[in-house]
Amino acid sequence: MAELNGTQIPQCYERIKPYIHRTPVLTSRLINTITGAEVYFKCENFQRMGAYKMRGATHALLSLSEEERQKGVVTHSSGNFAQALSLAAKALGVEAHIVMPSTAPDVKKKGVVEYGGKIYECEPTLEARNAAANEIQERTGAAFLHPSNDPDVILGQGTAAYEFLQDHPDLDYILTPVGGGGLIAGTALAAAYLNPKVEVIGTEPFAVDDAYRSLKSGKIEGNTSTNTIADGLKTQLGSNTFPVIRKYVKRIIRVEEEEIVEAMRLIWERMKIIVEPSSAVALAGLQRESTYFKGKKVGIIISGGNVDLARLPF
Amino acid sequence: MAELNGTQIPQCYERIKPYIHRTPVLTSRLINTITGAEVYFKCENFQRMGAYKMRGATHALLSLSEEERQKGVVTHSSGNFAQALSLAAKALGVEAHIVMPSTAPDVKKKGVVEYGGKIYECEPTLEARNAAANEIQERTGAAFLHPSNDPDVILGQGTAAYEFLQDHPDLDYILTPVGGGGLIAGTALAAAYLNPKVEVIGTEPFAVDDAYRSLKSGKIEGNTSTNTIADGLKTQLGSNTFPVIRKYVKRIIRVEEEEIVEAMRLIWERMKIIVEPSSAVALAGLQRESTYFKGKKVGIIISGGNVDLARLPF
Repeated sequence: MAELNGTQIPQCYERIKPYIHRTPVLTSRLINTITGAEVYFKCENFQRMGAYKMRGATHALLSLSEEERQKGVVTHSSGNFAQALSLAAKALGVEAHIVMPSTAPDVKKKGVVEYGGKIYECEPTLEARNAAANEIQERTGAAFLHPSNDPDVILGQGTAAYEFLQDHPDLDYILTPVGGGGLIAGTALAAAYLNPKVEVIGTEPFAVDDAYRSLKSGKIEGNTSTNTIADGLKTQLGSNTFPVIRKYVKRIIRVEEEEIVEAMRLIWERMKIIVEPSSAVALAGLQRESTYFKGKKVGIIISGGNVDLARLPF
Repeated sequence: MAELNGTQIPQCYERIKPYIHRTPVLTSRLINTITGAEVYFKCENFQRMGAYKMRGATHALLSLSEEERQKGVVTHSSGNFAQALSLAAKALGVEAHIVMPSTAPDVKKKGVVEYGGKIYECEPTLEARNAAANEIQERTGAAFLHPSNDPDVILGQGTAAYEFLQDHPDLDYILTPVGGGGLIAGTALAAAYLNPKVEVIGTEPFAVDDAYRSLKSGKIEGNTSTNTIADGLKTQLGSNTFPVIRKYVKRIIRVEEEEIVEAMRLIWERMKIIVEPSSAVALAGLQRESTYFKGKKVGIIISGGNVDLARLPF
């Protein structure tokens, strides 16, 4: 495969445009006052199914041949990608097989079923997930789509920053959370293409700082434990996301769990929008390093708003 | 005083415009599917200080003479009007005296202080509130502004519907919650002026159905108990709001407490915006009477988004 390149993003955007929302960019005077920066929030919590994952899932599906699509698609995910692929597949008349760990919250299983995805439960280990996905692939001929490492998924996720920089070309920074790395890799590609002066910075919890350590060591690091409220960020970088991040991203800011909850509360209380903990990580990073960002135009990608209201940290 | 009239609203709007946000109107495909109606949400939860009350408070202040403003203003409120008056007064350099019952939640007192209002605590009875406000009025010469019954407040609240009908002139209905009646009276005046074909309907909890009973009996009724989650709707109609409501509003839909919580959950989970229980009452009313609204264009005024996150009903 050729190296991933931001020049592919405009075409990707044109293809997925009919299937996604162009999400609004919000600002808050109070948050500007608190942080001392000029902050712009790209609200992917208002994206279809409630997260940016809809972009990558749609692009990956559209990149398959008609013949491939007829055989369906398969993924393993307990989070937003499972719902995104289900909904995108439904819109395109494709069958979606979703492998989910038996421990996945009911609310997420419900979402997948509601969007028309077919759930296959497995043991909550990476091995069991891979085995189940492989079995489905072999039996049905379905194409496997990885939630973050698939190249077409990465390009699709980059369209959020593509819209963002069209609306606000003069951002100094874009901050995103980092889990599997699909969002930040796509964002970095979009920024490098549209305006290389925009610096893309990653944010992640200290509890799962695999991306921070990977950038230090020069190889993909894992997490020995994943005890964080930011449930979307427990995964590690992949063979396609890591090289892009290594090339373009110079900095990862790490934050404490209390800082995540505080930032989440600030967004909920002051902006009156619902964001998931993973999204609050980026604002927490900005607040932690507020001296660094003082007076700058900082874009934050609010990755999603899918929260279990019965299990809030407040 | 001359009869309140919608023709006064455009001028009112021009005056308060520099001090308020023009709030967005949001839609949700899923909520349209669930209700069978075409629903438009006027998002006053995104208004400054988080509620439509900012409009009326600003208008009432601007309607005072320079001399009156120099003596300050006083109100009694434990809710959004206290914060609205504090913030509007701050913007205009006016001193705001806020009488609050000692039982008011800390989060609301905090809001008032943050916006620069001066709090006077009193016993949680209507008599004590009036007495405290009177005392301040006599001592300082401050002008008393009622949270819902003041004519200039009513006109100010009407600017939400004024913007709403400018953006969506072809609504069949506008639904609002009813507490003291300021919002629905202002809305009815705006609709009568801009498009008399728009029917304005009130919604309130069965637990505090004083407006419903007032329309039936032809006189202002009170509530013997106020046991509802919709904390903004416990008050009763006033001498200025009731005549307007009686003239223009033909129908009040009452809803159960569980219906309010369900509607609130639906908005939070699907629209990813934070609305207070009082705001969810309008959607609950639409859902309860969905047959009536089937296929119609229904506007809902989301009155506010000030919620104590530590005390959610989920």
